[in-house]
Amino acid sequence: MTQRIARLVLLVLGLTLGLVTMAHAEDGYDLWLRYRPLPVAQAQIYAPHLTSVVAGDRPMLSAARSELQRGVSGFLGHDLPAATSIGDGALVIGTPAEQPAIKALNLPLSGLGEEGYLIRSVTVDGHKVTVIAANSDRGVLYGAFRLLRQIQTGQGIDKLDMADAPKIRVRLLNHWDNLDGSVERGYAGASIWDWWRLPDLKDQRYTDYARANASIGINGTVVNNVNAKALSLTAPYIAKTAALADSLRPYGIKIYLSARFSSPIELGGLKTADPLDPAVRAWWRAKTDEIYKAIPDFGGFLVKANSEGQPGPGDYHRSHADGANMLAEALAPHGGIVMWRAFVYSEHDASDRAKQAYNEFHPLDGQFADNVLVQIKNGPIDFQPREPFSPLFGAMPKTREMMEFQITKEYTGQATHLVYLAPLFEETLKADTFVRGAGSTVARVIDGSLEKHALTGMAGVANIGANRNWTGSDFDQANWYAFGRLAWNPDASSRDIATDWVRMTFSGDPAFVTPVVDMMMNSREAMADYMTPLGLHHQMATGHHYGPGPWVHELARPEWNPVYYNKADAGGIGFDRTKTGSDALAQYNPRAAKIWSDPRKMDERYLLWFHHLPWDYRLQDGHTLWDGLVMRYQSGVDQTGVMQITWTGLAPYVDAQRFAAVSQNLTIQRREAKWWRDASISYFQSKSGLPLPAGYTAPALPLEAYEALTFPYAPGQGH
Amino acid sequence: MTQRIARLVLLVLGLTLGLVTMAHAEDGYDLWLRYRPLPVAQAQIYAPHLTSVVAGDRPMLSAARSELQRGVSGFLGHDLPAATSIGDGALVIGTPAEQPAIKALNLPLSGLGEEGYLIRSVTVDGHKVTVIAANSDRGVLYGAFRLLRQIQTGQGIDKLDMADAPKIRVRLLNHWDNLDGSVERGYAGASIWDWWRLPDLKDQRYTDYARANASIGINGTVVNNVNAKALSLTAPYIAKTAALADSLRPYGIKIYLSARFSSPIELGGLKTADPLDPAVRAWWRAKTDEIYKAIPDFGGFLVKANSEGQPGPGDYHRSHADGANMLAEALAPHGGIVMWRAFVYSEHDASDRAKQAYNEFHPLDGQFADNVLVQIKNGPIDFQPREPFSPLFGAMPKTREMMEFQITKEYTGQATHLVYLAPLFEETLKADTFVRGAGSTVARVIDGSLEKHALTGMAGVANIGANRNWTGSDFDQANWYAFGRLAWNPDASSRDIATDWVRMTFSGDPAFVTPVVDMMMNSREAMADYMTPLGLHHQMATGHHYGPGPWVHELARPEWNPVYYNKADAGGIGFDRTKTGSDALAQYNPRAAKIWSDPRKMDERYLLWFHHLPWDYRLQDGHTLWDGLVMRYQSGVDQTGVMQITWTGLAPYVDAQRFAAVSQNLTIQRREAKWWRDASISYFQSKSGLPLPAGYTAPALPLEAYEALTFPYAPGQGH
Repeated sequence: MTQRIARLVLLVLGLTLGLVTMAHAEDGYDLWLRYRPLPVAQAQIYAPHLTSVVAGDRPMLSAARSELQRGVSGFLGHDLPAATSIGDGALVIGTPAEQPAIKALNLPLSGLGEEGYLIRSVTVDGHKVTVIAANSDRGVLYGAFRLLRQIQTGQGIDKLDMADAPKIRVRLLNHWDNLDGSVERGYAGASIWDWWRLPDLKDQRYTDYARANASIGINGTVVNNVNAKALSLTAPYIAKTAALADSLRPYGIKIYLSARFSSPIELGGLKTADPLDPAVRAWWRAKTDEIYKAIPDFGGFLVKANSEGQPGPGDYHRSHADGANMLAEALAPHGGIVMWRAFVYSEHDASDRAKQAYNEFHPLDGQFADNVLVQIKNGPIDFQPREPFSPLFGAMPKTREMMEFQITKEYTGQATHLVYLAPLFEETLKADTFVRGAGSTVARVIDGSLEKHALTGMAGVANIGANRNWTGSDFDQANWYAFGRLAWNPDASSRDIATDWVRMTFSGDPAFVTPVVDMMMNSREAMADYMTPLGLHHQMATGHHYGPGPWVHELARPEWNPVYYNKADAGGIGFDRTKTGSDALAQYNPRAAKIWSDPRKMDERYLLWFHHLPWDYRLQDGHTLWDGLVMRYQSGVDQTGVMQITWTGLAPYVDAQRFAAVSQNLTIQRREAKWWRDASISYFQSKSGLPLPAGYTAPALPLEAYEALTFPYAPGQGH
Repeated sequence: MTQRIARLVLLVLGLTLGLVTMAHAEDGYDLWLRYRPLPVAQAQIYAPHLTSVVAGDRPMLSAARSELQRGVSGFLGHDLPAATSIGDGALVIGTPAEQPAIKALNLPLSGLGEEGYLIRSVTVDGHKVTVIAANSDRGVLYGAFRLLRQIQTGQGIDKLDMADAPKIRVRLLNHWDNLDGSVERGYAGASIWDWWRLPDLKDQRYTDYARANASIGINGTVVNNVNAKALSLTAPYIAKTAALADSLRPYGIKIYLSARFSSPIELGGLKTADPLDPAVRAWWRAKTDEIYKAIPDFGGFLVKANSEGQPGPGDYHRSHADGANMLAEALAPHGGIVMWRAFVYSEHDASDRAKQAYNEFHPLDGQFADNVLVQIKNGPIDFQPREPFSPLFGAMPKTREMMEFQITKEYTGQATHLVYLAPLFEETLKADTFVRGAGSTVARVIDGSLEKHALTGMAGVANIGANRNWTGSDFDQANWYAFGRLAWNPDASSRDIATDWVRMTFSGDPAFVTPVVDMMMNSREAMADYMTPLGLHHQMATGHHYGPGPWVHELARPEWNPVYYNKADAGGIGFDRTKTGSDALAQYNPRAAKIWSDPRKMDERYLLWFHHLPWDYRLQDGHTLWDGLVMRYQSGVDQTGVMQITWTGLAPYVDAQRFAAVSQNLTIQRREAKWWRDASISYFQSKSGLPLPAGYTAPALPLEAYEALTFPYAPGQGH
């Protein structure tokens, strides 16, 4: 080369290398779909298997192809050309129906259902290729993301033979997003839905949202708050929703709407919303037909009825089944479904709140139409740091029961605390209901295998907002990710999921992955300890649910008050849900109930959920209940210190922007953990009258100081 | 090279080239600071002059250095190493006080003041270098951004000799951001200030906000709404503001706060906020001292008092000067200033609203303390598509008068319409008040040269939100940019500014730049025509100010109703502000008033602002007023069609994401322009009873249909 050419080459190289710096601005927008350049040695290994992509051009196949192209161009720095003929290193993707090469391979696809996929290294006409095959385009799309994950997590792609299919059919996010752009229990900024500028403006964010969801197998989204406005069902809003559906459809995401039960009155001018009234039924049929005209693959309705002030069939002395079936009837001709929430408790019912959903729904078993799912929160109260599984799971064998988890951390640290929720999800899914004998886990209930239901579902209340990093903090992305993975496979391990997520989101370096995964895995237990140890629950402050409020007793409805749940007095603490108390235990199968019935033998992490015990009760480790309670609060706080130390040591492995953001959130978490400990101990000490165990520091402030705190602009309260 | 090495080189090249694709995801976050790789030929020209940077390490110098490094690494793809010794192609930046090489050059810096800079290609010790010199670190920072702009706009850097200094001292953004994260009159999502997580969480966005502002010379920001809450002055919020100040300080941005006048009552427990009460004065002094303890370079207070329901000195029968001077007294020891808004009009004053601010403030001339600026909106009403300049400009020679422009497009298309506001700003700045004879332009009033004031200011109500593109649309970034440039130099040309902005934000290709700049330059006139032609004003719908409402007449206060301003009836249309009417004209210098006094000779774009005329009045082009009015509405609509065609043709020059977003917004703009035309013509035709001129299409709907429209979740209304 002449010197001039050499200089030119160096300049070109420099120019392009310069981009490495720019691309490294890590603001979290890419989530776990970070297709960053691989080290050269690694790239050399993958490159021969990523030379071209052969794919059909239907929308979801195009989406799969362009995602593979995006990934490869990121990993390897060269284009992945779309080809029509097969050569060495090609990715051949599609279904037997439309891709002759795949048909010819005669792959074992029959067991994969509508959404599964198979990825295999094969030889076609003498060419070594990788095939991603499925029975449907959506399956192909999921396979494409799976192959990309394989590379992102540093695994081989030369000898692939993988097949997978989701165990749950409806895998949904629930957005509690209001039409004014606020998000109820949202801690990541405003809603990502720009209802105002829809249907015209189709934000790139909608596509990236769909990509992220498709990558973890989520196939639907409820876009408006369960505390719904009828406005969402008007023609202009149907048009807006249809435009959104157009953006999500290529990634296999169906749209669902929360429906306000009184809409026939508010929009239709009817005098009633009685589900047995023919005019009301006709109104819902016509409205549903109108929606399907605009959105042919519309998923269906989610309904919060007769719950916390929402209208419902009870207003007309009809049952939840009457209400759900009316909507089911309107949706059935189109293949749509109803998700009817079981989150109900009444101000006119004096019984233990934990029992009320069961009491109201259990008698309705067998009455719900085939396209109705009853959507049940994981625990009997409300998304607490720890709850036993809801006794409704497994208790309605003729009913399709669906899970509702909360991904947004309303009660579990909001957007600041680093709390990985998958262990909480996993704990519920693996809990045994015993309704068909041992092994009747909640996972088996909701995946339909226990009672042979085909229609199954899992919903997660989204933690997504318009913040640049989507979820308000970098680590909250993991909760979205883990929810999707568990909805796909409720038997998956939360540790494995965390490991994948860390590798995809941050770094594959084991020196980073191991401590971070450990920190994540410990985080939920730490949070439960510093907020509500030993099975305490519902101890948060009022309204915003931010921070501790164990002393709160003056709210209008008894079951809104933390004192209702802790029942702390001079004699002891805890909610007696045994026979001597509310007997909520009796709602469980006797074998399940037995696990929690004897405080001396049970898992003490549920202790005060089920038992009221004296302060001097001896815990299994020999400490008194009072001492053990204080020790657990302290242990939770101590864990936040460990997390800070761990993270500080990981600076070399993380970009500056995300390192700083996580560090700053950990600072907040540690301070707030101390606050939870101090305020809670202050209050309970005012009841127990006991000294702290030796060596444990007294709360920083007197009880009154904690009680006096107010937070006028705490986030997540909607408007 | 062996084949193996060749393959490796190609792989490395490919890897890095691949990033070109990724870096091209244009979501607008980088604003005009897009340091994209230059074409090789161009890069070769710049590279020899960008080999290293020699800079001190004080915070603003570090910021300048790191911005240069970021830019060069983007443009050229190689690092710009920081050096201590000077070599060929070095950038030597600093002040004579701390950089010996600059001191030795003995550059002519004396005329540049505190914030100006000088950039010159010089030889130091036989090395060809580029010097950025100033009297202060902030000047150096501005010079660094100026050099980067030189490259971004494709100009040479080999023979530089530039010097510039701001003509206005206080160059501010006003954020109408509420503490709950909503933004009054914001159309770009939630507030970028995460008050909840401050002071701990220091969002990267704060730094990028500061960079963007510094790049256009903005040196301060008022972070909370003028409709202020006292909470902003409490200790926790002062700590939050201090943390924000820490993020902005390295970029020369000072923080100011909107102060609620009644704070001594709400926070201090006093019985009064009377500005002459010693206890009130003491409270403000103590509060101000408290702020300065946390924020030593705190800028001062902005106050909206006795305006639209806000408390103020009038509540105690004291004057605006009494109120302002009380705060000025507290701030003076720290070098802080008061910006006291002149946006007042009273429900108890029956006179023309356009006259009221003048009537209330003019008598106070000479009474304001030296560190008070009276902040005056550009026109006498409220940020309309077109207003004559406020008669207060130049009318208070002993008072420091400051400009308030509205960058957020409350009345000018909100975030969807492509409307470049700089021509509106320029029109006001170049308007001649004649108070000291011809040439006494508004620019000369606010830059202090007319009355020899040293303390001068210009504020712009920010259009910034948490949207990824900051301003809700790509083209609204131009309004932020242009405001900054005009605050630096109120004599700058809006066309030149647009040209720079287009080159920096999109492309330097003349085939793109020329039509886009033309489109921007025409856009404000088009908007004025389809919304409020011929000097009509305040014709928008109620509350949200979205869309037309010329028929609105039922609001409680007369001057809130559009009919108050259009005065359309069977006889004619327009507001008579001559002697036969409200005589608002008399508030102007007679020479200025004369320009608008004769409808037959005046610029007809102000016609109906000053005159009520019969429908058959003959315009200067011979058409009747009615026909001419309809024609102008139509012409505005037609321009939106031209904009669509222009933009469509420019697809090859723009990335897909921004091309689509702009196209979609233009679709909305065109539909809404037609709506403005049709609704307005409908209403005015109901008064004139006249047919449309031949060839002009009748409104699409009957008047009642336009009147019946409601927009429940229109943005920008705060909460």
